[in-house]
Amino acid sequence: MPSDSSSATPRDRLLDAAGELFYLEGVHVGVDAVCKAAGVSKKSMYQVFRSKDALIAESLTRVGVEFLAALVPSGRDERSPRERILHLFERQDQMSELKAFRGCPFVNTATELKQADHPGSVVARAFKQQMTDFFRTEAIAAGIADPAVLATQLTMVFDGASAMAVVRAQPLGGAGVAMASAVLSASVLHER
Amino acid sequence: MPSDSSSATPRDRLLDAAGELFYLEGVHVGVDAVCKAAGVSKKSMYQVFRSKDALIAESLTRVGVEFLAALVPSGRDERSPRERILHLFERQDQMSELKAFRGCPFVNTATELKQADHPGSVVARAFKQQMTDFFRTEAIAAGIADPAVLATQLTMVFDGASAMAVVRAQPLGGAGVAMASAVLSASVLHER
Repeated sequence: MPSDSSSATPRDRLLDAAGELFYLEGVHVGVDAVCKAAGVSKKSMYQVFRSKDALIAESLTRVGVEFLAALVPSGRDERSPRERILHLFERQDQMSELKAFRGCPFVNTATELKQADHPGSVVARAFKQQMTDFFRTEAIAAGIADPAVLATQLTMVFDGASAMAVVRAQPLGGAGVAMASAVLSASVLHER
Repeated sequence: MPSDSSSATPRDRLLDAAGELFYLEGVHVGVDAVCKAAGVSKKSMYQVFRSKDALIAESLTRVGVEFLAALVPSGRDERSPRERILHLFERQDQMSELKAFRGCPFVNTATELKQADHPGSVVARAFKQQMTDFFRTEAIAAGIADPAVLATQLTMVFDGASAMAVVRAQPLGGAGVAMASAVLSASVLHER
């Protein structure tokens, strides 16, 4: 959520502007554009962030926390692991209907940076792992024999669905939910 | 494959250089860098290509033909549809071991451009559809009840596997092949 720009610190305004511009237009957007959107001078920016690379990494951290919070059901609840997993794919499906949807910010950042050791790629990898870990925790709760494999597969479904929405420039229309559901059913099937 | 630079036309050299640089570094690479790599003046470049957008679209077309040729088994052969589909995922697995692997050029281009109507995004969408059409043709040959659904699912597996290799910066180690195989088995299962 953008902070109230009148009271937000330059650091907050820079993180919000960078997070939004890097997601909507790509990490190659220049610091000039970010500073302009944030209403902060370039000199001030470099007093707060060591480099553009640091700004990419820190703004992705902020975007990532919000993105995961919007997808992952919080804490434990009454629902089954299967329902909690499908909740995530239903949220992705809803997101894909938004005009501002550009896919998964973690995959996008890694794809755009193309440098595995860039601070932004490191942050992207860590957040993507958090999503995989959520799937794994639910798979363990469901008593699946190989939770790590299911977690990897569900991560692939999520990223494959994101890619489909981006490439086709269309909402998912339930395709990701349906596939996640099929993968979960096949996984339970193998248990029997 | 890079053409012999001594005999290749400026157009060929520009397409090769652009295809390689856009894939390895991203479509935001400037035309100056492309022209330098191709050994062609910027003036000459704009005599051959109307715009950078046209260069992106045309170089992706060349890259795309090679990428699909490396993945899709040619014509009909002795193998079953299942084997022909898994061939594509085995080739992706091998590609992911290459140091120069950056994922799927079609998904990457659409992700980086972030404009559905950009000529490069249009080319990316058309090539991705060719991959989905290959899956669909094989699914029909295998007598699957809903070949379009299976084709979409296999496309998601391919793109999800690409994303995993890029985000983790690791070879796939069979993860994409295993998931495609599971999806195919589940699909046949539903037929029974």
